[in-house]
Amino acid sequence: MIFDRLSQAIQEKKNPTCAGIDTRIGHVPGAIREKYDCGCARGAADAIWEYNRALIDLLADVVPSVKIQIACYEMYGLPGLETFCKTQDYARQAGLVVIVDAKRNDIASTAEAYANAFLGGAGKPAFDADILTVNPYLGWDGIEPFLKADADRGIFALVKTSNPSSSQLQDLPLADGRTVFEAVGDLVEQWGEGTVGACGYSRVGAVVGATHPQQGAALRSRLLHTFFLLPGYGAQGAGGKDIVGMFDEKGGGAVVNNSRGLIAAWQKSTQAWPDAVRAAALAMQADLAAALGL
Amino acid sequence: MIFDRLSQAIQEKKNPTCAGIDTRIGHVPGAIREKYDCGCARGAADAIWEYNRALIDLLADVVPSVKIQIACYEMYGLPGLETFCKTQDYARQAGLVVIVDAKRNDIASTAEAYANAFLGGAGKPAFDADILTVNPYLGWDGIEPFLKADADRGIFALVKTSNPSSSQLQDLPLADGRTVFEAVGDLVEQWGEGTVGACGYSRVGAVVGATHPQQGAALRSRLLHTFFLLPGYGAQGAGGKDIVGMFDEKGGGAVVNNSRGLIAAWQKSTQAWPDAVRAAALAMQADLAAALGL
Repeated sequence: MIFDRLSQAIQEKKNPTCAGIDTRIGHVPGAIREKYDCGCARGAADAIWEYNRALIDLLADVVPSVKIQIACYEMYGLPGLETFCKTQDYARQAGLVVIVDAKRNDIASTAEAYANAFLGGAGKPAFDADILTVNPYLGWDGIEPFLKADADRGIFALVKTSNPSSSQLQDLPLADGRTVFEAVGDLVEQWGEGTVGACGYSRVGAVVGATHPQQGAALRSRLLHTFFLLPGYGAQGAGGKDIVGMFDEKGGGAVVNNSRGLIAAWQKSTQAWPDAVRAAALAMQADLAAALGL
Repeated sequence: MIFDRLSQAIQEKKNPTCAGIDTRIGHVPGAIREKYDCGCARGAADAIWEYNRALIDLLADVVPSVKIQIACYEMYGLPGLETFCKTQDYARQAGLVVIVDAKRNDIASTAEAYANAFLGGAGKPAFDADILTVNPYLGWDGIEPFLKADADRGIFALVKTSNPSSSQLQDLPLADGRTVFEAVGDLVEQWGEGTVGACGYSRVGAVVGATHPQQGAALRSRLLHTFFLLPGYGAQGAGGKDIVGMFDEKGGGAVVNNSRGLIAAWQKSTQAWPDAVRAAALAMQADLAAALGL
């Protein structure tokens, strides 16, 4: 079961980091960029692929997982999605758990088509994810097909997102005293019932912004069988101290994503880009380990 | 402005129908299917492309718009998305308004990448939509980038979806007396402020399931500047009488989607498939026109 595998990889590397491979052309070091015609989709996609390969080589012994944001590749059309697929394969061959951040969502038969695309159920999925992010707004019949696709894979459903406007809908108070995001969290916990693995967590994880320490900690004590993906570390402002409460008492049950803080680390450094990226990943590992007492 | 253009096309054709080109390989007539190796992604994608072309040829003088469900193409990977792009171009060349049903959603900079992919803002978009469906769960900073991409294009945000489980989250009562979907509807109306065109509707439309006649009618009187996309007609059970209340008093302000009821019409007919598809489209036009008094 995928959350067992992710939990084990986190323990082995003593590092609950997910490296966000959300590569824009502006994140690619000049030495790589200048080799390609980055003004066209093909050239930009090829430059990003070369950088992604280098990133995975640099990070694979430090981090247990990557999160690949498909929007960054869709914007380059078919060449971009080709780079997306190659990046997935390369990360999996490097032994990393591959989280695809696609926030897909639709009703029953269409959700099944998305599940086939990302998680399987009809042969090898074209966009091969171990765990896929999904949007919960449509309810259970938009979630179930993702769980049916392949019993070894899982999903992260959005519960409380890291962005400032997340409060606009997600924080609205319900008549029963809960907020909308708490109700979604309760649904996520319910949707995962019967799929709990050895790690104590189900196949339905939750996305909880690291930028909301109090709400995240409250969700942690509420959702006892739900693994958390915590975006918002680094560029969005959250640090190690903010995420402690979103882990369980053993320092497990969550993984912290950092995208720009790793892949664009060289832009704020005097080191050569490979050294800067690796240093940023090691600094994050140290920050999280200190905060969690790993 | 795209909703002016859509409204005009509906008036000219006296037909508020959107043909859902959500083609699965099982919808493709045998005479086409047998020409391709449909067991592989390439063959299936090519068979679907041949059928889509025929569908658009058959429907272009009857319907004003198509809705293309990207999930049906993503499941076939890059060959599927190639068919998706060719279908979009072909529909646009036939003079149809192209709605892409992708329900995309993310936070600010990533929403911008999706906007670039579907609506422009960074050159010609790879997946070229006149109107894109989006999921509102992340709030305004996940919506704004879609509106910034190209002032002539628009979005449909999910408000009340057509599926049975839509009630699970969307119908929850808020402390202020509204339901979650009413609150989302109010946000949609607010997000569209300042973008209202000659037709009286803004660039931010709403998806409202035709399967919920009462809730849809209540939304109609609540959201005065919001154009509706109404899925759920036909295979999902809604008919002309169900959607009347979701149109404005002039019979405008909405478009009704039908996917399987058109593209798979030949499966329930004794007619040759081209005749069956066309007959289904004309029957839907007649049903809507009678219900709306067009």
